[in-house]
Amino acid sequence: MPADLRDAFDAYERAIIANDLDALDAFFAPGPDTLRGDAAGLLVGHDAISGFRSLRGGVPPRRIAEIHYRPLATANEGESSDGDIALLMSVSQFVGGGRGLQTQVWERVEGQWLITAAHVTPRTPALDRTIWRSVGDPFLQGAWEGPLEGLTVAVKDLFAIAGFRIGAGNPTFLEEARPEKATAPAVADLLRAGASLRGIARTDEFAYSIAGDNVHYGTPPNGAVVGALPGGSSGGPASAVALGHADIGLATDTAGSIRVPASYQGLWGLRTTHDLVPRQGMLPLAQSFDTIGWLTRDGETLQRVADWCLSYDGSASTENVYGASGDDLPWRFLVPDEILDCADAATREAFSKLLAAFAASDDPPSFRAVHTGDLDATFAAFRTVQGAEAWRNDGDWLRAHPGAVGPAVAERFRVAAQITAADERAARAELDPLAAHLAELVDGAVLIFPTVPGPAPQRTADVHAVRAATLRMTAPAAVAGLPAVSVPLLTVDGAPVGVCLVSRAGTDIALVRLARRLAALVASGSRS
Amino acid sequence: MPADLRDAFDAYERAIIANDLDALDAFFAPGPDTLRGDAAGLLVGHDAISGFRSLRGGVPPRRIAEIHYRPLATANEGESSDGDIALLMSVSQFVGGGRGLQTQVWERVEGQWLITAAHVTPRTPALDRTIWRSVGDPFLQGAWEGPLEGLTVAVKDLFAIAGFRIGAGNPTFLEEARPEKATAPAVADLLRAGASLRGIARTDEFAYSIAGDNVHYGTPPNGAVVGALPGGSSGGPASAVALGHADIGLATDTAGSIRVPASYQGLWGLRTTHDLVPRQGMLPLAQSFDTIGWLTRDGETLQRVADWCLSYDGSASTENVYGASGDDLPWRFLVPDEILDCADAATREAFSKLLAAFAASDDPPSFRAVHTGDLDATFAAFRTVQGAEAWRNDGDWLRAHPGAVGPAVAERFRVAAQITAADERAARAELDPLAAHLAELVDGAVLIFPTVPGPAPQRTADVHAVRAATLRMTAPAAVAGLPAVSVPLLTVDGAPVGVCLVSRAGTDIALVRLARRLAALVASGSRS
Repeated sequence: MPADLRDAFDAYERAIIANDLDALDAFFAPGPDTLRGDAAGLLVGHDAISGFRSLRGGVPPRRIAEIHYRPLATANEGESSDGDIALLMSVSQFVGGGRGLQTQVWERVEGQWLITAAHVTPRTPALDRTIWRSVGDPFLQGAWEGPLEGLTVAVKDLFAIAGFRIGAGNPTFLEEARPEKATAPAVADLLRAGASLRGIARTDEFAYSIAGDNVHYGTPPNGAVVGALPGGSSGGPASAVALGHADIGLATDTAGSIRVPASYQGLWGLRTTHDLVPRQGMLPLAQSFDTIGWLTRDGETLQRVADWCLSYDGSASTENVYGASGDDLPWRFLVPDEILDCADAATREAFSKLLAAFAASDDPPSFRAVHTGDLDATFAAFRTVQGAEAWRNDGDWLRAHPGAVGPAVAERFRVAAQITAADERAARAELDPLAAHLAELVDGAVLIFPTVPGPAPQRTADVHAVRAATLRMTAPAAVAGLPAVSVPLLTVDGAPVGVCLVSRAGTDIALVRLARRLAALVASGSRS
Repeated sequence: MPADLRDAFDAYERAIIANDLDALDAFFAPGPDTLRGDAAGLLVGHDAISGFRSLRGGVPPRRIAEIHYRPLATANEGESSDGDIALLMSVSQFVGGGRGLQTQVWERVEGQWLITAAHVTPRTPALDRTIWRSVGDPFLQGAWEGPLEGLTVAVKDLFAIAGFRIGAGNPTFLEEARPEKATAPAVADLLRAGASLRGIARTDEFAYSIAGDNVHYGTPPNGAVVGALPGGSSGGPASAVALGHADIGLATDTAGSIRVPASYQGLWGLRTTHDLVPRQGMLPLAQSFDTIGWLTRDGETLQRVADWCLSYDGSASTENVYGASGDDLPWRFLVPDEILDCADAATREAFSKLLAAFAASDDPPSFRAVHTGDLDATFAAFRTVQGAEAWRNDGDWLRAHPGAVGPAVAERFRVAAQITAADERAARAELDPLAAHLAELVDGAVLIFPTVPGPAPQRTADVHAVRAATLRMTAPAAVAGLPAVSVPLLTVDGAPVGVCLVSRAGTDIALVRLARRLAALVASGSRS
């Protein structure tokens, strides 16, 4: 190996260990063609690679145990040595155990060796702690047969599992919790149907966020978009399902916590009718809006889960659901103007193309624009009621544990703590007309709109404005207590965006059927 | 991208999905320079790559989501196109969720595109099921302070943890087991000292093997030697420690189950004096020889663990150990001829160089050769007693579950079932003199010899002869109930081999100190 290449390799390795971002940036060839990939995905272009590094933090201490040099191209004789290209594959041995593998293509440019492509395998962790608190194969075996036999479940860390504590995304809360005596019905129903638990998946702290980040355990990887937020608060279960670690995410949705990660990661996500799935053994955020639901990679699996969990023999909700879900929902859709206006231009355009494709299909549904009224006012009132309930649930604990939660969630609780009983009463009164209006709209039709404003933001983005727009889109179904499913039907800038369908209370099973009918229409359209 | 390169890439991808080994072999350039790496390590040379593939099994269904082409070298004009070199980096999307990344260097040789280097990142599983049954961060939190604070433990799946079942490396056994009511003292001692559990790690079925393979869950990766057996029966905890998933492996050693994986993976491993560490809550294999011990990456950690677990306030073994372990062991070593003869020539040579280096050091210990007597006879008697006890422990279960265990372990139990009471009595009588002889030898000196015959065999190797030689080396300490530590002091053909020290009963803590003194001598020798 040329001595100057070895020097460059060694200097790069020192920069890695020191996490010297400027030096690392300088070692990668500038321009849009440079490649760097690992298990989280492939980054294309020098800038994307720099952005990733700013979030990674350092690499644990290691030494190079092996290095293999393969010259690939040699500069022509007599010319400068520019154009030399070499492959280096090296094995690193970590001081704390474990090995890594680095593949680098180096090229001599103006006398300097630069990396034009890299593929990195860091040492494999026992588990991805951003996704999982605990995981097993299985973590808990379900019945050996049943309609969900062979499926695995990522349980959001808000549900009681006998013998385990609830962690709620906060290590202090987890440490003080006691093992649960009984398993939540929502968990037990899945086990009884033959599904097994893969593990306990991370949640944003107390489920009070839609970003999917957690200051204590890190941000789960988005399974669909490299470097993007996973969406929350069910980010752990969503990433687990998107990455194939589990088939079903058992999650909760208060203000969008199932629908947002479903949209961000190209999954199916169902928020059930309020009060339909019993919430015993589930740590509450805001009882007026809290619901239980599921995330899956496909509509068929979501249907199997909903069919069983909402209708099994012995379920508290059977009668309720079968009354309303036996019949198919109408093939008539309403597009709520004010919700659609919250979406990005690119998302609105993709959505409008989708509606046009539906209209041009063999099985055209009807569409009509409707108004929901002012979403700013609705959202302010929603946030007030949610905050008042959240503070009643968690205020004592937060007061007793100052500094135990991350800054964004702490700020949300700080605001919530100021809400007076009069504020709450006024807010509830303000929400009633919207709930009544939505209930009226879905009596004979189904609302359809993009689930969120657009693709998952990058982890480096400022998400303040996105959060505000998102909650305006997701809160209305919560206010009205209606079932809402997010279906990955849109692609915007190469990333998935969900389409949300909202139907009459108790029609959850029929709603998934309807969503599958729409998805089939998209699939047949793309085939023709 | 040249059309013929794209064709080659697509054909290779089809061969991957079909697991067409011949086609895959043909796509990789022949010769010793071809490279292929993944998280398990880097394979060098076409033959090593072929060998790996024969064991891998297929790749789950996937499609190529992205492909990036970078030409690296171009054949000179006018000549044949031989010499063209291209880099392809591609992202695969798995049907069952998750993404993978492939980097390939392709070269046109005699008109054919061949892969000369490849780096593969398959989709990341939730956990490595060959190493772990369940894992968490933490799996179970220990005391928040104490002498082992911050260390993580991989618990071999033979120990009781309150609320969990013991699996013993067999899925049928696990399924029928009931959750344990109490935690084994050996586990509780670690928790009480501030260590946390990382998870429950795999064992060979009923711990009745030293290979480290398990037909149900697969073979854990050897953390030191690519493609080699991990050693067993504590292969799960050993791999977990070697890979940095955990700091301490809590394991058992009946006939070598701690020392063998320690040697194979370059770890420190202590088999404690028989009956020193209480075995409550540990599933027995053969009570006359069963012991509890630990695996670590370094001597300091092993010392911390032994110091605490063998002497903490309230330990059943405190008095016993402090009596015998307070003083340092003599700096006098005995090399047992018959045990050394079981080692490979290369290992014997490395061992003899090590002794020479010790002798030439500033702190030379004394060495003397001794005889243990015929190991064939010893081992036959050992196997008889072990088999008789194993059958008493597990025979009822095995009879009730025909076909539930893998063939190698089933065969071992089948032989064990034939052992008569008279056989057992005779065997015990035969072992007594060896035990007495060894006890005499270690009264005033310490036995030293290579832990096992040589480096970990490759997973593709026939291990029959190795197994026989290994057990002849590991059984004597078990027969005499003496403490034995394996220290990674030898390197043979680039792979680690342990040096085993055996000392007087109850001197376990002092034995680890002695081992560290020897290791320090090696370290100072390599520095000078």
